[in-house]
Amino acid sequence: MIKKYYLLSPGPTPVPETVLSVAAEPIIHHRTPEFSRIFMEVTEGLKYVFGTKEDVYILAASGTGAMETAVINTLSPGDKVITINAGKFGERWGNICRAYGLETREVVIPWGEDFSPEQLAAEIKNNPGVKAVFTTLSETSTGAIFDIKGFGQVVAATEAILVVDGISGVGATACYMDDWKVDILVSGSQKSFMIPPGLAYIAFSPKAWKLVETSKLPKFYFDIKKYRKNLEKQTTPWTPAVSLVIQQKKALDIIKSLGMDKLLQHHQTLGQATRAAVKAIGLELLAKRPGNILTAVKTPAGVDGNKLVKTMQNKYMAYISNAQDPHKGEFFRIAHLGYMGGFDIVTALSALEMTLLDLGYNKFQPGAALAAAQKILREGWQ
Amino acid sequence: MIKKYYLLSPGPTPVPETVLSVAAEPIIHHRTPEFSRIFMEVTEGLKYVFGTKEDVYILAASGTGAMETAVINTLSPGDKVITINAGKFGERWGNICRAYGLETREVVIPWGEDFSPEQLAAEIKNNPGVKAVFTTLSETSTGAIFDIKGFGQVVAATEAILVVDGISGVGATACYMDDWKVDILVSGSQKSFMIPPGLAYIAFSPKAWKLVETSKLPKFYFDIKKYRKNLEKQTTPWTPAVSLVIQQKKALDIIKSLGMDKLLQHHQTLGQATRAAVKAIGLELLAKRPGNILTAVKTPAGVDGNKLVKTMQNKYMAYISNAQDPHKGEFFRIAHLGYMGGFDIVTALSALEMTLLDLGYNKFQPGAALAAAQKILREGWQ
Repeated sequence: MIKKYYLLSPGPTPVPETVLSVAAEPIIHHRTPEFSRIFMEVTEGLKYVFGTKEDVYILAASGTGAMETAVINTLSPGDKVITINAGKFGERWGNICRAYGLETREVVIPWGEDFSPEQLAAEIKNNPGVKAVFTTLSETSTGAIFDIKGFGQVVAATEAILVVDGISGVGATACYMDDWKVDILVSGSQKSFMIPPGLAYIAFSPKAWKLVETSKLPKFYFDIKKYRKNLEKQTTPWTPAVSLVIQQKKALDIIKSLGMDKLLQHHQTLGQATRAAVKAIGLELLAKRPGNILTAVKTPAGVDGNKLVKTMQNKYMAYISNAQDPHKGEFFRIAHLGYMGGFDIVTALSALEMTLLDLGYNKFQPGAALAAAQKILREGWQ
Repeated sequence: MIKKYYLLSPGPTPVPETVLSVAAEPIIHHRTPEFSRIFMEVTEGLKYVFGTKEDVYILAASGTGAMETAVINTLSPGDKVITINAGKFGERWGNICRAYGLETREVVIPWGEDFSPEQLAAEIKNNPGVKAVFTTLSETSTGAIFDIKGFGQVVAATEAILVVDGISGVGATACYMDDWKVDILVSGSQKSFMIPPGLAYIAFSPKAWKLVETSKLPKFYFDIKKYRKNLEKQTTPWTPAVSLVIQQKKALDIIKSLGMDKLLQHHQTLGQATRAAVKAIGLELLAKRPGNILTAVKTPAGVDGNKLVKTMQNKYMAYISNAQDPHKGEFFRIAHLGYMGGFDIVTALSALEMTLLDLGYNKFQPGAALAAAQKILREGWQ
């Protein structure tokens, strides 16, 4: 067989061919009206995807850089914060906050479990004086989503700000920053924004900007005031990653022409199809509240989970993702965010069925996952 | 005339067509042996260009992010440092150090002037207890270079480390990190590394690593220990900018096939040709010790410097750079770093001659700059 590669991981995600090819165009200088026009168009497009009237800032960094930007621009040494850790990326908020000497109340939840707005309200009540709550829209390590709209209502009634890591979630599951009262929303280019990794995005509500004015944590490269001042001049404080910004313009054209409602509906169809498919062959989901970004599926009893992932990746070249430490092999993750279509799901499920058979697992009707997925995809196909 | 664009700025610089086109290839996942192989090849190539046996770390950031990385990984609040400010980028070292509460002795030198190793030795003597000296290989705002080899001898004899911003310099002018006793060397992808902006590079000497162990400044995204730990696993702590890393591999192939000696000789020829050319039409250089990275030329009396730059950029589309604030219009900058060839210099000089004539300045023999440049280029052409 020709070794044809299928990228089915939750980031980086496949980039549309028309977006890849603009990266091969000659580099233009970043201090030109030509680049500023593209840059401002991207900024506007990001505001549309974020669901905000606030400016969205473009950083040359991975998503983690934008998470750190949220922390160091709003807080001061010794400030009290709550971080919600229900997986690898929620855990990161705690690591960043502690690295900066913040008094960090870390709520640790087993991977895949939910955390309700009521539970958050109780946490805030038990920790008076909290300045910020850090949480995750879509936890990439588990595929679970939180009720961010509910969190927004809870936190808006307090002095604290709500900071949301939307790195894998924004653009694949609903998150309306302004309507849902999210104070800082963070995302990254290599997820549902359909371009390669290297850019991170962040926006601040008026309530968050007030904290920026009093923040005393040290910063330079990620100093958001420098970005705000330079955006007035339609530019960035440091040299922007020109080719990625140009790619983002092209990818936003695709997103805007489809429209956010249809884009979210598309991902909902992919998510539903994937969940129905794995259930149809008797497998179990990890997340109690699964999102439409990726689906984490428990390794069935008797199957070596690491071998399953390796076979899918190396034999079938369907590059799904293993669970991360410390849960490697216990479950695997099929992504359906970004530039993924119905047949990408079919590919992933077909590779999964074949791999299960290869590994001697046959407690299912071959084709059952595909049929279940197809049924939902066909209904969604318009 | 067809509006054909010539990028002649000191960053971003033109990217070879063969390097542009690999950015249009499909994205591969970063946690794969395939990517790790490319990543390690780039790391090795960067070591070759840096002239070091130490590992060179790849950050998803602009060069400024790597400058901040040098500061926050080696120092602790209240530490004494010396920063040498002979232009916009030397000034940045002081800004970063003060943002982190360091006791900063900033040596301010008029733009274009030199600063000798003897003067540095005197500064260190007058400021006992200095932990680090921050300086610049090639000051992009003036085209001047410092005697980094001499600085290395001076600083090596003390307890302090020598930190060098080689963002525009490395790859266009000599800088042998290990031989010259540079403790931290920083560079950026959009200069002589011949790829678009978005990656920054940094390496630490054993002396610098010792300071890393005691450093107490807060950090997370730029925490170099995280990069060191992940490099052992042939990867990065955060999602790398995959497409840029792949482009860097391709561009390093070009650099390695030519060899560093010939590459530096090439830039020397371009630098000499440019300097001889502007002198041949009676113009003056800004830098007392000009480098081969870019040439800053004083605006002749009677000519509006801002108009000169705008005419070159907009009428002839020869995108040279104006001086930066507060010296805008006083001089202009012709770059010859990165993927620039002899005819790029000819283009810049031809646009310069035509522009001077357009602006009514005629105290020169038309063609004289071109003839002077050609003479040197022809000798260097092999």
